[in-house]
Amino acid sequence: MSASAEFEAANEKYAASFNKGHLQLPPGRKVVVVACMDARLDPAKALGLNEGDAHVIRNAGGRTVEALRSIVISQQLLGTREIAVVHHTDCGMLTFSDADLRSKVRQDLGEDVDHFSFLPFSDLKQSVVDDVSILKKSPLVLDVSITGYIYDVKTGKLEKVYA
Amino acid sequence: MSASAEFEAANEKYAASFNKGHLQLPPGRKVVVVACMDARLDPAKALGLNEGDAHVIRNAGGRTVEALRSIVISQQLLGTREIAVVHHTDCGMLTFSDADLRSKVRQDLGEDVDHFSFLPFSDLKQSVVDDVSILKKSPLVLDVSITGYIYDVKTGKLEKVYA
Repeated sequence: MSASAEFEAANEKYAASFNKGHLQLPPGRKVVVVACMDARLDPAKALGLNEGDAHVIRNAGGRTVEALRSIVISQQLLGTREIAVVHHTDCGMLTFSDADLRSKVRQDLGEDVDHFSFLPFSDLKQSVVDDVSILKKSPLVLDVSITGYIYDVKTGKLEKVYA
Repeated sequence: MSASAEFEAANEKYAASFNKGHLQLPPGRKVVVVACMDARLDPAKALGLNEGDAHVIRNAGGRTVEALRSIVISQQLLGTREIAVVHHTDCGMLTFSDADLRSKVRQDLGEDVDHFSFLPFSDLKQSVVDDVSILKKSPLVLDVSITGYIYDVKTGKLEKVYA
């Protein structure tokens, strides 16, 4: 069974008992979360979010430089006034270099991506510090509270590393 | 109470009964979801995802052009072989133009972002078609099944619009 068929079956059940149709567009808790796309991290469960609470931006590594477009929209048009950045242990971004992946893409896909960075990192804690700092220094981001966390995929625990 | 303090309190509860520490890095269901950051959409709940199942990429609008870096990492390094794109009704991206937001940023933040696109759209269904098409045509994306959906924030229902 394809994932899409499974999604459609699961969604029928979800929609059958759905009672969130009254929620408004702006996030109720006025917060935006930037987190890694990692399959083991469910930001809603791990942070206690319900539908309607928060914008959740996710990408490989939870890199904030790629989240700037979304954060400007979140703050300027939808009123969020706090940011949380969540990276995690055992992240795939710790396992390769740009040179590695560029070489793999050239070999397997025949494409030259030497101009492109996949934004890997070699120090997890520093990656959170860097990603919070990028937001704090950006003239496009409001001067709001920004907290940086590491989520431990073995324990489910969140460790605050920058506030 | 700040959102970060609420996240930390909620996470203590989550971690106390956490039993997912055995999960591996590659997504178990070999699928990557690209969805909007909208607060009302919980992709895990709406699609029936558990921790460990799928990469979830989210940004303002669920725009795939901004997801390419993450998709290449997901496919080339972590073995995903299916993609689902999820946009939704009442999306914020339907409510503004680049000119509107550029003007607001200039006025409120004093910054010139005339070179930048915030990737809004005016036709929801077409936005899904466009975003699936970008992936299908990209030489950096494997020839895998890609399904495009619209999620209805009033009913919780997923409508397939491109497969």
